[in-house]
Amino acid sequence: MSVVVTGAAGFLGNRLAQNLAKRGAQVVLCDQIEPPVVPAGGRALVGPLEETLGAAIASDTRAVVHLAAVVSSGAERDFDLGYRVNVDGLRGTLEACRARCAQPPKFVFASSLAVFGATDAADDATPTTPLNSYGAQKAIGELLVNDYSRKGFVDGRSVRLPTISIRPGAPNAAASGFASSILREPLAGQRAVCPMDLDTDLWLASPRSALRSLEHALDVDGAAFGDYRCVNAPGVTVSVEEMLAALARHGGDRGLVDFVPDPAVAAIVGTWPARFDTSKAAAMGFPDACSIDAMVRSHIEDELN
Amino acid sequence: MSVVVTGAAGFLGNRLAQNLAKRGAQVVLCDQIEPPVVPAGGRALVGPLEETLGAAIASDTRAVVHLAAVVSSGAERDFDLGYRVNVDGLRGTLEACRARCAQPPKFVFASSLAVFGATDAADDATPTTPLNSYGAQKAIGELLVNDYSRKGFVDGRSVRLPTISIRPGAPNAAASGFASSILREPLAGQRAVCPMDLDTDLWLASPRSALRSLEHALDVDGAAFGDYRCVNAPGVTVSVEEMLAALARHGGDRGLVDFVPDPAVAAIVGTWPARFDTSKAAAMGFPDACSIDAMVRSHIEDELN
Repeated sequence: MSVVVTGAAGFLGNRLAQNLAKRGAQVVLCDQIEPPVVPAGGRALVGPLEETLGAAIASDTRAVVHLAAVVSSGAERDFDLGYRVNVDGLRGTLEACRARCAQPPKFVFASSLAVFGATDAADDATPTTPLNSYGAQKAIGELLVNDYSRKGFVDGRSVRLPTISIRPGAPNAAASGFASSILREPLAGQRAVCPMDLDTDLWLASPRSALRSLEHALDVDGAAFGDYRCVNAPGVTVSVEEMLAALARHGGDRGLVDFVPDPAVAAIVGTWPARFDTSKAAAMGFPDACSIDAMVRSHIEDELN
Repeated sequence: MSVVVTGAAGFLGNRLAQNLAKRGAQVVLCDQIEPPVVPAGGRALVGPLEETLGAAIASDTRAVVHLAAVVSSGAERDFDLGYRVNVDGLRGTLEACRARCAQPPKFVFASSLAVFGATDAADDATPTTPLNSYGAQKAIGELLVNDYSRKGFVDGRSVRLPTISIRPGAPNAAASGFASSILREPLAGQRAVCPMDLDTDLWLASPRSALRSLEHALDVDGAAFGDYRCVNAPGVTVSVEEMLAALARHGGDRGLVDFVPDPAVAAIVGTWPARFDTSKAAAMGFPDACSIDAMVRSHIEDELN
């Protein structure tokens, strides 16, 4: 099975590529920068997506996992870049599938809770009225993936991922980056800044859980999506206070977290729902997300040992 | 007031341009073909939209009404043309506003009931899960108009219009074209084909009603839209049987209508809701739509006398 992963130098994309290779796939890793790991049997194509698509997607491509994206604060700061990467980049990838693949490839699109706006709770029938550019671009992406699927150009699957915590490595330009740093930095003995209040609720999934969702989206029968090729992925609702309590339970010092309100972060993260009904995902066999304690534990296991 | 109307050779666009000119606006009429009427004080720019935008939208443009579109069956038949006109054409128009206008112009975008899919009834909080390319393109358009508004590039207003009946003139490539022809043709003593059953319900508005909605969308305070710049326009639910009964009441011969099922039309029109909650429009002061009898009467007044 030949699988193309875009955004394959990112931490999720790179792990997904490794997991898929272990399962016997020949993985093509596309990214603007060199992926940290190129699994055995895989090959990396480094450069702007529009330049590597021609070599990446071929007649025998069986699946594409599209993770290449400009994240939330980045897309809010640079409007043109956000649309170029998050909309035009997706459309170019869908077009490459349409033009080159002998059979409609499975097409997993990493969407986001950011497609929702100004609602506390969301289910799979909540309208996508995003209040940030990243969410608008992801909602446009879902519409494209569904329409390309309906026309038989791809076998699409949009998966709305929760905020991922604990994201390893250096902070990125996601407005929700604090959801990782307030745990990751203290676990490494370093200070962190929290831009939101203790009682802020977040909708979270661990990297392992997000990977399981992406892999399940690749494995599941497309017909299980029903009329519309999109699903809210499993996650858990956790407050900042509960995150810091879990940090303390696992030996972290919550005194290392400074609270410095950031209106720019609140303007983005504050519009995202924190409570989800994920019964569609459950009915489709998506594995449940893990608890906040398991999130902290898996970070310690995967990154610190 | 300088107002740009795209799709101004179409029957709605051309009447809107005339109405706006009567209200004192200097109207710029953009279309690929020559508009049938260029009102006093107005000027026509004929050619592909991307070539006329530069001359149409200027520093002092105060409002844009974007009607240029490939309609439903056309967009379903020619996937690339639909996306080029309905998505890229809109994006180009929004970009021209962003680049050229001294102040964010009012931007009325003609969206459609086609953004909904597989639901019998819709309100303003019904998710946009379209099952045809035209609906997907209009739903993408709503997301763009909202995001460009949120960023302060335009003062956007998306108005989801019902199927328009009775559309004058020759049939167009709208899958819902029969909703006009089964009344229009018999009123002119000609035969018409109805591709749907007598008990098919449709969500309709007359040309006069659609024009009132577009003009009201231009006049209303943008803040009245709330968080999201979109509204379901007023309409009425009417069955094919009720349409033919109204035809007969106004002297038309319903025996001139032949019933020939068309799966391609059913695949598009059959996914559109026929019952709407338009309380948001009502609260914003949008005028109510008229009855099926008034629709027939106004067609006779406007087109046949």
